[in-house]
Amino acid sequence: MSLENYIRDIQDFPKEGILFKDITPLLNNAEATQECLQILVKSLNGHQINKVVGAESRGFLFGMLLAQELNAGFVPVRKPKKLPYETVSVTYDLEYGTDTLEIHKDAIQKGDKVLIHDDVLATGGTAKAVCELVEKLGGEIVQLNFLMELKFLNGREKLNGYDIFAVLTY
Amino acid sequence: MSLENYIRDIQDFPKEGILFKDITPLLNNAEATQECLQILVKSLNGHQINKVVGAESRGFLFGMLLAQELNAGFVPVRKPKKLPYETVSVTYDLEYGTDTLEIHKDAIQKGDKVLIHDDVLATGGTAKAVCELVEKLGGEIVQLNFLMELKFLNGREKLNGYDIFAVLTY
Repeated sequence: MSLENYIRDIQDFPKEGILFKDITPLLNNAEATQECLQILVKSLNGHQINKVVGAESRGFLFGMLLAQELNAGFVPVRKPKKLPYETVSVTYDLEYGTDTLEIHKDAIQKGDKVLIHDDVLATGGTAKAVCELVEKLGGEIVQLNFLMELKFLNGREKLNGYDIFAVLTY
Repeated sequence: MSLENYIRDIQDFPKEGILFKDITPLLNNAEATQECLQILVKSLNGHQINKVVGAESRGFLFGMLLAQELNAGFVPVRKPKKLPYETVSVTYDLEYGTDTLEIHKDAIQKGDKVLIHDDVLATGGTAKAVCELVEKLGGEIVQLNFLMELKFLNGREKLNGYDIFAVLTY
């Protein structure tokens, strides 16, 4: 099975000049989804994980599957005012303006072994912010993994020192 | 294990007078999540499911787990302009104003056996809109299931004729 066949190119989405990688054909196929999950799990080389952190909202998809497969808790990172309990937050720069992400302050305990998951590694801004949230709570980041890495956007440069894995690279 | 213990009450969220049921303690515990998943699967009495449809964004969480457990595809329903490919949409009334949901037009084939999942059944507006989207594409709705049903909001009245199941009721 070639997982690339389950990623659909969409021209000019969300705006002109961007070639968007649509993962919905992958989600729509149970076998392709399972293969992708097993590749992600294998990349951890048996390292223990207590918590899987996934960013709203596409990071929720494989984030939950990974958490169950690894017998770990799942922790959502969300945009402001979405999480109902007490949170810590990080604000980070975008190309124009800033963005903020939040995590529940009791979601991770000091020393927890944490896997961070998102669907795409692009510029790395979101991933870096999630790392900061996890570390504010005392979590130890074991790996960041992604379904796809867009290498030409150099996201890894922002994530120096972390173990990074992506199933597909473009 | 009492799953109620993993649902946290949050007073006055998202606005004053609302008692919000926070599922993040459940997500944070792998065993409680697995038990909840097995209850949802058992409620289907072995009926075949081809597609699990989950509404953005909390419906993605157990939606993906259910899809994998049932060896079915997962189909996201999202707010406008989030899905990159061609969509069909439904606009429905809220207490004040309207809301719109979209589904990819190729996500469900005529005759697909569909399970619709969301975290909470409240007034039923979202669930009803998701039913309409699925039926526009020719899908046959086998069940709607939820982690929680807020009975005092009478959501079932909007969903007459559908099989409905919730793990917890309030």
